[in-house]
Amino acid sequence: MRISNLSEQSGVPVATIKFYLREGLLQPGVPTARNQAVYDTRHLRRLRLIRALTTIGQLDLSSVRELLSAVLDEDLPLPRLYQVVHRSLSAKEPASHGNDGAESARADVDGFISRLGWQVAPHAPGRSTLAQVMAALRGLGCESDIEFLAPYAAAADELAVHELDLIPADGFVTDRAAAVARTVLLEVALTAMRRMAQEHHVALRFGPARSIPRRR
Amino acid sequence: MRISNLSEQSGVPVATIKFYLREGLLQPGVPTARNQAVYDTRHLRRLRLIRALTTIGQLDLSSVRELLSAVLDEDLPLPRLYQVVHRSLSAKEPASHGNDGAESARADVDGFISRLGWQVAPHAPGRSTLAQVMAALRGLGCESDIEFLAPYAAAADELAVHELDLIPADGFVTDRAAAVARTVLLEVALTAMRRMAQEHHVALRFGPARSIPRRR
Repeated sequence: MRISNLSEQSGVPVATIKFYLREGLLQPGVPTARNQAVYDTRHLRRLRLIRALTTIGQLDLSSVRELLSAVLDEDLPLPRLYQVVHRSLSAKEPASHGNDGAESARADVDGFISRLGWQVAPHAPGRSTLAQVMAALRGLGCESDIEFLAPYAAAADELAVHELDLIPADGFVTDRAAAVARTVLLEVALTAMRRMAQEHHVALRFGPARSIPRRR
Repeated sequence: MRISNLSEQSGVPVATIKFYLREGLLQPGVPTARNQAVYDTRHLRRLRLIRALTTIGQLDLSSVRELLSAVLDEDLPLPRLYQVVHRSLSAKEPASHGNDGAESARADVDGFISRLGWQVAPHAPGRSTLAQVMAALRGLGCESDIEFLAPYAAAADELAVHELDLIPADGFVTDRAAAVARTVLLEVALTAMRRMAQEHHVALRFGPARSIPRRR
């Protein structure tokens, strides 16, 4: 197919496709004439992955580039691929501020993770994220016992298993791309569902919200 | 306490506190002398809330301002307060691109939510987010049946109930602030735990990841 068809089928503007080509994120098509090339379904699939990671996943281009090369490198074991994805996702998040109380919460987080039996690297960004959250909740006079997070951890554990069951152990490139896409997209989906479930249960308990004007 | 103590106890630099005061996010202290004022624990608590929302929650100042006034307005029923929080959180997310296939997935999402029995507004941003995710997964040849999301919805439902059980029905301002803080912070915590649970289960199935150098 030509670049115009690629654009139609992916919903990505031609100018953006050309930008991805220049940036080396999308592999070149097969040249047919001066300034023309043809593309196939592998281009379409790659383009859709780039698009999903940048728009829904809000990853920057350098993370996407790193992720694509990890997907394509079939010698890279799956655990390493996941490490690259997790690192990219965590790069979107703010670092701890030193004196925000997160340091003292860190020991509780480490104990919590160890009681869960999770084998997680000492430098996993999630540890400091949890420490920041616990420090903030404590500072606000909310929950102070980290075991309050146990139901969240149980849900996370169950969903991780559910998702891994979808990956065949041999791990072809398409499965690797799917693993990356699910990790990035289902995090967004889970968050959206949590908000909707809240909306529902708050309405059940406290009555429905009167509609308020949407932000423009 | 003086502004320097406020800074020490909150971990927020004096310059930033002064900025929040100028912006009207933090209520003024009681003036004691020319250019001096004293602050109390209500200032400290408000400052910590602002800080948690902007750093961990990554909300912009206009969202924080809107949230604070919704927290302080005790006439605003809890469902409306949650609506304001959900809207602020969704404002961080990208809008659909029109031709990304999300429109055709929207009917499936609406059916899914109705089968869940969730009472969710037709314009709830989560609906279009889910439609975008489903369209992307389909385009990538991953899951096409929306029922694949059922375990995520079940987890979201359970956690929403767990969290609401923490709010007394009378809803004082401190409880309202706590409800907002939990909504924003536990979304971040859940995401972090999902990544760690993945790291753990991927290692269990495919062997541990060799440590790769951390991004600087």
